[in-house]
Amino acid sequence: MSSLLTGQRDAARQCAVEASRSEPGRPLAAHPDELCVEEPLEIRIAGETYATTLRTPGDDHELVAGFLLAEGLIRSRSDLGGIAHCGRLGSPGFRNTIDVLPAPGTAFDEETLGRTRRGSLTSAACGMCGRKLIDDLLLRLVPAPPCAPFERSFVASLTTRLRQHQPTFERTGGLHAAGIAEPARGFLVVREDVGRHNAVDKVIGRQLLDGALPAPGALLVVSGRTSFEIVQKAVAAGLCGVVGVSAPSSLAVSTAAHFGLLLCGFARGEAFNVYAGKERLSA
Amino acid sequence: MSSLLTGQRDAARQCAVEASRSEPGRPLAAHPDELCVEEPLEIRIAGETYATTLRTPGDDHELVAGFLLAEGLIRSRSDLGGIAHCGRLGSPGFRNTIDVLPAPGTAFDEETLGRTRRGSLTSAACGMCGRKLIDDLLLRLVPAPPCAPFERSFVASLTTRLRQHQPTFERTGGLHAAGIAEPARGFLVVREDVGRHNAVDKVIGRQLLDGALPAPGALLVVSGRTSFEIVQKAVAAGLCGVVGVSAPSSLAVSTAAHFGLLLCGFARGEAFNVYAGKERLSA
Repeated sequence: MSSLLTGQRDAARQCAVEASRSEPGRPLAAHPDELCVEEPLEIRIAGETYATTLRTPGDDHELVAGFLLAEGLIRSRSDLGGIAHCGRLGSPGFRNTIDVLPAPGTAFDEETLGRTRRGSLTSAACGMCGRKLIDDLLLRLVPAPPCAPFERSFVASLTTRLRQHQPTFERTGGLHAAGIAEPARGFLVVREDVGRHNAVDKVIGRQLLDGALPAPGALLVVSGRTSFEIVQKAVAAGLCGVVGVSAPSSLAVSTAAHFGLLLCGFARGEAFNVYAGKERLSA
Repeated sequence: MSSLLTGQRDAARQCAVEASRSEPGRPLAAHPDELCVEEPLEIRIAGETYATTLRTPGDDHELVAGFLLAEGLIRSRSDLGGIAHCGRLGSPGFRNTIDVLPAPGTAFDEETLGRTRRGSLTSAACGMCGRKLIDDLLLRLVPAPPCAPFERSFVASLTTRLRQHQPTFERTGGLHAAGIAEPARGFLVVREDVGRHNAVDKVIGRQLLDGALPAPGALLVVSGRTSFEIVQKAVAAGLCGVVGVSAPSSLAVSTAAHFGLLLCGFARGEAFNVYAGKERLSA
């Protein structure tokens, strides 16, 4: 079972732990707590290990689809033949290995595959390991699609509304969130993950699997800071901008400006800063 | 020039930008701001590309030393022959490529090198891409060294004291910080970086270059959440524990417990939670 706004229902995204609490002048006290779950996922392509990422379990198909789009191995849903966990349902480790097949009669680009295949661990926060040069990535990307200007009140509302869809963060304080939103329909999809890039890959992957990319008029919303890689993923997905709760980096700003994306940061309460693409805002 | 508590003085860690500010009921207003700098660093081993990371410039030698320790390519300073930026001082891109040589008469482990060499981009948040299996990494690690118990008041003071050494965060809001501290001397080294793993690599790399590892009695302090990889780096460095401002993940807690590290989270004000190794705290 998967919901667009809460993700796969049967995935264990948090677990109980017997922690202790230290406060001044008091003895150490028992403190039952909940942790966000972090587990490895080995991604195979046609049976061969491509990468291993540390992620929060659940919505792994989306994670893989979004990851392969950002890596440049696929361009649309039609490039994908199948995505399936390996082994038998319920067997140990079943959920920790996933295999991807190209669409029948096609193959993933061998040059890209050879350059990026790693047999390696892609960190929870690492969405694009495997690129020798940033330029390689950017050369394949096209400017963000045109769309109607965004109302500033819509942009200002996004991070508060994202927070309403973060049930696991509320319980553990340990997860990043990402969402895709548009003015007419609000949030289309929201995901939480221990890795910020994983959360972005999951929401973009969901849209890709639904055949909804590129997405003129849609914005990526993230619960933290905006790095180069977050902007690069938004460009690859054909989104029109990125709105973050915290600061963008210098390279995030220059990349957003280069590809014509709206880039907003410090979006808190009803105010925000605009770092690129302010022509995409209505007066 | 480099200082243990503020890092390389001549590195551009922030830059000015002409942003705009949106507030309800007011027109978009000019808003001069400062951004944290994010730039790629290509790490070469004996002239051949090993990885490319997105980092905040400065203290690159430390970053590389800490990164190679966590990757398992070196075990101490004596494994390193030299670390030098490529090209001529002042030439374009001079600071964005760095070459590492093994110590004279030695070589980096070819098996490790072959398994991990990527010609790839290691994300700003990705400190250990290049490992096929987490188990590979853990098999090479040994339990944290014994040391005198830590006073709870010392542990409680660490994140507040770390914040006092984050000048670039104060200006940009965009950098993570990491530090290494011990009871007798306080913070030994602090670094800020756009990538959380980079900041950890830099402080551990500094200690490695100073011949100060393993470090019984020392704790790693981080400004954010604690993931598996943060704990793994602390174990590889021979530190006794990790103290974080935010939540740990499930795998961070089990790894800390396995290797006997103190792991504290939500360390804010004078209180904190203890998730592993509470026997390392004095009553």
